[in-house]
Amino acid sequence: MNKEFFISYLPMLQTLGINALKAIAIMLIGWYFARFMRTKLIKILAKKDEILANFLAQLGFIICIIITIITTLGTLGVQTTSILTVVGTAGVAIALALKDSLSSIAGGIILIVLRPFKKGDVVELGSIAGKVEAVNLFNTSIRMADDRLAILPNRNIVSANIINSTDSERRRIEWVCGVGYNSDIEKVRNIIKEVIANMDKIDQDFPPFVGITDLGASSLNFTIRIWAKIENGVFNVRSELIEKVKVALDKEGIEIPFNKLDVTIKQ
Amino acid sequence: MNKEFFISYLPMLQTLGINALKAIAIMLIGWYFARFMRTKLIKILAKKDEILANFLAQLGFIICIIITIITTLGTLGVQTTSILTVVGTAGVAIALALKDSLSSIAGGIILIVLRPFKKGDVVELGSIAGKVEAVNLFNTSIRMADDRLAILPNRNIVSANIINSTDSERRRIEWVCGVGYNSDIEKVRNIIKEVIANMDKIDQDFPPFVGITDLGASSLNFTIRIWAKIENGVFNVRSELIEKVKVALDKEGIEIPFNKLDVTIKQ
Amino acid sequence: MNKEFFISYLPMLQTLGINALKAIAIMLIGWYFARFMRTKLIKILAKKDEILANFLAQLGFIICIIITIITTLGTLGVQTTSILTVVGTAGVAIALALKDSLSSIAGGIILIVLRPFKKGDVVELGSIAGKVEAVNLFNTSIRMADDRLAILPNRNIVSANIINSTDSERRRIEWVCGVGYNSDIEKVRNIIKEVIANMDKIDQDFPPFVGITDLGASSLNFTIRIWAKIENGVFNVRSELIEKVKVALDKEGIEIPFNKLDVTIKQ
Amino acid sequence: MNKEFFISYLPMLQTLGINALKAIAIMLIGWYFARFMRTKLIKILAKKDEILANFLAQLGFIICIIITIITTLGTLGVQTTSILTVVGTAGVAIALALKDSLSSIAGGIILIVLRPFKKGDVVELGSIAGKVEAVNLFNTSIRMADDRLAILPNRNIVSANIINSTDSERRRIEWVCGVGYNSDIEKVRNIIKEVIANMDKIDQDFPPFVGITDLGASSLNFTIRIWAKIENGVFNVRSELIEKVKVALDKEGIEIPFNKLDVTIKQ
Amino acid sequence: MNKEFFISYLPMLQTLGINALKAIAIMLIGWYFARFMRTKLIKILAKKDEILANFLAQLGFIICIIITIITTLGTLGVQTTSILTVVGTAGVAIALALKDSLSSIAGGIILIVLRPFKKGDVVELGSIAGKVEAVNLFNTSIRMADDRLAILPNRNIVSANIINSTDSERRRIEWVCGVGYNSDIEKVRNIIKEVIANMDKIDQDFPPFVGITDLGASSLNFTIRIWAKIENGVFNVRSELIEKVKVALDKEGIEIPFNKLDVTIKQ
Amino acid sequence: MNKEFFISYLPMLQTLGINALKAIAIMLIGWYFARFMRTKLIKILAKKDEILANFLAQLGFIICIIITIITTLGTLGVQTTSILTVVGTAGVAIALALKDSLSSIAGGIILIVLRPFKKGDVVELGSIAGKVEAVNLFNTSIRMADDRLAILPNRNIVSANIINSTDSERRRIEWVCGVGYNSDIEKVRNIIKEVIANMDKIDQDFPPFVGITDLGASSLNFTIRIWAKIENGVFNVRSELIEKVKVALDKEGIEIPFNKLDVTIKQ
Amino acid sequence: MNKEFFISYLPMLQTLGINALKAIAIMLIGWYFARFMRTKLIKILAKKDEILANFLAQLGFIICIIITIITTLGTLGVQTTSILTVVGTAGVAIALALKDSLSSIAGGIILIVLRPFKKGDVVELGSIAGKVEAVNLFNTSIRMADDRLAILPNRNIVSANIINSTDSERRRIEWVCGVGYNSDIEKVRNIIKEVIANMDKIDQDFPPFVGITDLGASSLNFTIRIWAKIENGVFNVRSELIEKVKVALDKEGIEIPFNKLDVTIKQ
Repeated sequence: MNKEFFISYLPMLQTLGINALKAIAIMLIGWYFARFMRTKLIKILAKKDEILANFLAQLGFIICIIITIITTLGTLGVQTTSILTVVGTAGVAIALALKDSLSSIAGGIILIVLRPFKKGDVVELGSIAGKVEAVNLFNTSIRMADDRLAILPNRNIVSANIINSTDSERRRIEWVCGVGYNSDIEKVRNIIKEVIANMDKIDQDFPPFVGITDLGASSLNFTIRIWAKIENGVFNVRSELIEKVKVALDKEGIEIPFNKLDVTIKQ
Repeated sequence: MNKEFFISYLPMLQTLGINALKAIAIMLIGWYFARFMRTKLIKILAKKDEILANFLAQLGFIICIIITIITTLGTLGVQTTSILTVVGTAGVAIALALKDSLSSIAGGIILIVLRPFKKGDVVELGSIAGKVEAVNLFNTSIRMADDRLAILPNRNIVSANIINSTDSERRRIEWVCGVGYNSDIEKVRNIIKEVIANMDKIDQDFPPFVGITDLGASSLNFTIRIWAKIENGVFNVRSELIEKVKVALDKEGIEIPFNKLDVTIKQ
Repeated sequence: MNKEFFISYLPMLQTLGINALKAIAIMLIGWYFARFMRTKLIKILAKKDEILANFLAQLGFIICIIITIITTLGTLGVQTTSILTVVGTAGVAIALALKDSLSSIAGGIILIVLRPFKKGDVVELGSIAGKVEAVNLFNTSIRMADDRLAILPNRNIVSANIINSTDSERRRIEWVCGVGYNSDIEKVRNIIKEVIANMDKIDQDFPPFVGITDLGASSLNFTIRIWAKIENGVFNVRSELIEKVKVALDKEGIEIPFNKLDVTIKQ
Repeated sequence: MNKEFFISYLPMLQTLGINALKAIAIMLIGWYFARFMRTKLIKILAKKDEILANFLAQLGFIICIIITIITTLGTLGVQTTSILTVVGTAGVAIALALKDSLSSIAGGIILIVLRPFKKGDVVELGSIAGKVEAVNLFNTSIRMADDRLAILPNRNIVSANIINSTDSERRRIEWVCGVGYNSDIEKVRNIIKEVIANMDKIDQDFPPFVGITDLGASSLNFTIRIWAKIENGVFNVRSELIEKVKVALDKEGIEIPFNKLDVTIKQ
Repeated sequence: MNKEFFISYLPMLQTLGINALKAIAIMLIGWYFARFMRTKLIKILAKKDEILANFLAQLGFIICIIITIITTLGTLGVQTTSILTVVGTAGVAIALALKDSLSSIAGGIILIVLRPFKKGDVVELGSIAGKVEAVNLFNTSIRMADDRLAILPNRNIVSANIINSTDSERRRIEWVCGVGYNSDIEKVRNIIKEVIANMDKIDQDFPPFVGITDLGASSLNFTIRIWAKIENGVFNVRSELIEKVKVALDKEGIEIPFNKLDVTIKQ
Repeated sequence: MNKEFFISYLPMLQTLGINALKAIAIMLIGWYFARFMRTKLIKILAKKDEILANFLAQLGFIICIIITIITTLGTLGVQTTSILTVVGTAGVAIALALKDSLSSIAGGIILIVLRPFKKGDVVELGSIAGKVEAVNLFNTSIRMADDRLAILPNRNIVSANIINSTDSERRRIEWVCGVGYNSDIEKVRNIIKEVIANMDKIDQDFPPFVGITDLGASSLNFTIRIWAKIENGVFNVRSELIEKVKVALDKEGIEIPFNKLDVTIKQ
Repeated sequence: MNKEFFISYLPMLQTLGINALKAIAIMLIGWYFARFMRTKLIKILAKKDEILANFLAQLGFIICIIITIITTLGTLGVQTTSILTVVGTAGVAIALALKDSLSSIAGGIILIVLRPFKKGDVVELGSIAGKVEAVNLFNTSIRMADDRLAILPNRNIVSANIINSTDSERRRIEWVCGVGYNSDIEKVRNIIKEVIANMDKIDQDFPPFVGITDLGASSLNFTIRIWAKIENGVFNVRSELIEKVKVALDKEGIEIPFNKLDVTIKQ
């Protein structure tokens, strides 16, 4: 009867044996695939950001191992739905927790692919302005004008309006200059226009605008718009313009008024 | 007995064989479909944004390959629920991470389909105003008035109130002009109206408005509303109006007052 | 034995044949249904927004085709769970990406169904005010007072407080008028009330309010509330009121004071 | 052999027949249930908001029909998982898109059930204040003081702090009145208290507060708190109080000072 | 053969019969359970908020009935996956729509369980301050100081910082008092301290602080910190303190300066 | 035939019997486990917050009972998918509704585990500053400087930047002091430094900073930075410093200037 | 017949026995794995943050035990779908509740991996600036300039723009200095440039900028930009520069003007 008994269990044992074989195969393939992917991921990502590449590759490796283990357990006949429920829920939790960080990495890939700016460009990103020092996978470093280093998560950059000041050769400068109310409009305009015409740092191809745009509380306010050649530094051109206009107005006796007040004295 | 043994395993082997055939078929079809879709995607998208088209096509290719591999594994009898759980969870995580970026691409498609503005239009988008230089799949470049380039993610554009200043031939200009309290209201109105009537750059078909709208602290404040012909530049018309009104008021002896203060001196 | 072999495979082949027939049937029905729905969708939506209607119909067509293909594959015996997982995940990702855009279309439908305003109404939506030019499926165009065109995504409109100024025949105007501290309160009130009583553009059925509401730093501040007939333009009525009150106060010798300051001189 | 062949297919045909019968039954029941629900929904909702009721009933009808079709297809042996996946995903997408609109309808139901205010109440909702004109299922109309109509989505109302000014018979009025620094505190207090005691429109049951609460830059600042009877209009009572206090202070020779400045002249 | 035919269908009919019996049982149990739960829910919730209790109980009833119907259909052999998919999706949609409203009810339960304040307490919740009139399941009513009623959704309260001013017997009052620059610091301090020492409404157990904390533009600014007994009203104590200090400083000849300006006259 | 009939139903009855036994076993185990968990939860949580502990334990109990009932129903052969769908959906809805409240409890656990501050610490949390009175499971009470009690949900605390002022023995005080433009810089610096050197309440180990940091409109502005010993009260040290510097500057004849104005008189 | 009865139940009993064996094996393996993981997690995390490491390890332990119990129940034949639904829903609820806290821990890992700053660095994070004292797993402590300790959740840090001031040797200082309108521009420039040239603390390799950038209301405004060597303290260099320029301008008789006003006296 032993033999019969054995025979009656034979199919079960066969099934067991085949499943064990399958499990071992899955184990081995999973392990080699996980290692292969880790190596691959490092190779692709390390060019951009070595530290993060190692970290992400390690993460990918662990995820592959977890998949392999659960599949193996399932093949051996263990009910894996509860494990999968918890893994799924934990995954969602971690996804929610990492949302911003993953957004930054996704943003880094987009910055690298689309290149709205590149190393060395002068950009404005909200309240941060400066020269781009590095575009990493997670964040971007910007050297600000006073030499402090701003490190912005790429997520903030990708969702922001970027102002890239690098690609144009000139910049429009706008300056409002107040003169006395009794000045001759045309004379003031001519003086200012002459100053502009004699400045090398101003791009003369673009006609400047000089005109009153406001009757101020104490002064006629002329708005001056000129186009500076960017290689001279916008800030310098602006300063030189102001100084030269000041000197020219003084020479011609045009008043640059202080605040004015009409007072009626009552006793 | 070998033969019997063999026969008893025959159906299993047959099943195995058929599954292997199926797996190979799926593999091949999946591979060609993935390649076909990559080519197709590039063709459709490359007109709008070549870099992004390559990137998205590559992404679609990888996704197709992953589906093919998992289906093949399932056909070969591997339990794929754990892989699918992790793929699904990872997908949700990546979806959350890419939410803003995908929104920008979706926004790009909507901008291309609906065309609320086109290349060359002058638009205002929140604090950014300028001429549209390019509407890409991911972002839109706007050349600002001072020649800096603003790059806005389409997501920001699609969810913003867009002000398109291109389609109208005239623009209403509003300017508040303060005169002395002892001026004759009708006389001032007539002077200003005459100035307006003599300006070519103003659209005379639309009657201007000139009237007091505020008894200011030091001046009677006239609000002037005129319609400028847009081809002359709104800014220029406004400046010319102000200058001409100033000259006319001076000629007629109408006071443009400084701030006024009644002082009572106490000892 | 060939025959026997054939017979042993007969049921499998039969199943195969039936499945193939089923697959072809599903294919055909899916294809015609997809085309039918595309035509239907265009018919319903094109009245409101032709471009978007084409786009949405095309989208619906593609989705139907995808469903048909997957169902066909499933009928042919391919394991489709992995495809469905990826399709589901991608669907969630796209839903997240399109959230705002879909909200705008949903908002468009709500605007068309509920009609809180219609073409030609004068509305205020946050900082945007003007005349409604078109209510489209995705966005609404508003012509602003200075003739610029604002294009607002319907999502912003549906979730905003809408102020519709069209349906009433009168508008209350509030204006604060400062007179000298030594003026007789009743006399000032009577002067102003007389001015109001003599203005045609004011709706005399609603009694005006004229009273001091603030002892200002330099003036007694009268608040004047009148009801303007809207057909005369609220802005015009307000201006006319101010001008007439100014003239009347001047005639009666009521002071409209400048800023006042009591100064004690110390040596 | 034909007969045998037929017999071998008999069970399959039987199954088919039974399934076809089932499918027809489901079809019919689904259709009548969908129509029944549409009628029912309109009946319940139309009392509150007819347009929206029709819209929602139509929506419910379409959803029932979709469920019926898919169930029928499933009964006929079509694999419906792919359809369900897409329907589910599309449902989530639409849910996300309609989130705010559904919130408004839910908010409407809550407003109708809980009644924090009713038609005719005077309410303040953030920056919007006025008389409630209608509480609809989707939005609430408020007639503002200047007769413009504000239409607020119920979602904004339900999540906002509502200030309902209707249910109380009196309102506290607070007014700061500045007098000269050399005034007698008690005398000023008595003058003001007398004025208050002689005003009918003030609720004398609640003792007023009159006291210095600030040593201002140019004046002793008395804070006056009285309780106005609401039937006289809060604005009117306030104006009357100010006018009467002004007259009383003048009569008693109490200074209401202008801004004061101590000047030291240096040569 | 009829009999044979009948016998061949016997098991199927038996199954049908048993299923019909099961369905009827489920129907009955579901119906009674739904009614039982409705009664129960009303009993528990009606103590707190009767209107909402009825509403929620009705909602619970409908949900139970829906579950019962679907289960019955499933038992009768109808494929219910499509219904469940739509019910699940609709559930998620409604959950998203009701999120804020459900949060308010959850917040109401938390307010009732944790009792951070109770009826009659004086609280500050952001910009709303006043006496709590009722804590309902959905919202909380607060009677503001000027007798208007603010109705806040509990969700806003639970997520806000609550300032409860009820539980302490004293309140610190801080007041800044400016005296002339040539005053003797110690003398001023002593005058003020004496005033404080003679006020009953001030809690003398806590030493007051009187000291210069700012060299102002025109005055030495003393900061005074005292502890008022809360039963006298914080506002009254503050006013009395200011009045008494004013009188005391006047008596001792300490200057309370106006704004001061050093003027250099240039010709 | 009865017997045969009975025998044919035997297996079914056996299955029924076994299922009934299983159901009873599950019922009992579920009930005792639910009670055990309730007791356990109260024990663990009651140390921190008794009211909330009871509430959460009761909630846990109800959830266990619901699971038990559904499992029992499933074991008895009722199709439970519809119940589970609704329970799952309701769970998601409740999770969304309770999100903020659960965050506060989670935040409470984190505050108890990490202890960024403890009872008695002086902290600043946004606009709320004061002494921590209690760290509960749901909220944290802070006694503000004027003795009002602020109750903050832990969620707000955990996500905020906490400034804990308790752990350091000194605090840097910064004060800007303006002196006349014609003062000797070094002399002023020496006077101030001497005052600082003679104050016990200042930590002399840290060198003070005294220097001009701004050429003000009317005064040279010295910035003074000293390190106060915290046991003397930062506010007191600051006041004493200002008073002593004022006296010292007066003694040495250094001007503390009023606002200055250069006036040119024009006739 | 007993024996036959026994035999007929044999397979069921065998299945039961095998399942019981399986359940015990799963129990044991689950228990040891949970303990192993707890030990492992503590080892890895304890280096960074011991308290949190214990907490997270305990959490991981409990999760493993829950999975083990559910799998065991499933193996014993209990329907676990209802448990899994509740566990899944509860998991989502907890994930939502813990989102911010998990984000902080994820942020901590990212800060430790990417090291945008390290202990001792001087950083600015929004309104908080100071020296980094510790980077923990959950939060980061920053010692502010006045010795208060700011504790920031890592989530806030990771999503913020970080300004790291540590890595550069110099800092640009910008200061605006107003001189009288009648000053000689070149002379002023030379004086200031000489002062700069004689200061050791300024990095002379970078040319300073000195120029007018604004015609102020009362003064010509020179903007001065210099590069301070950071080892001398930016604040000190700035103060020294201002003091030296003040002295130099005084020596050369350059006016640093007060506010200026042109007054016209009217009688």
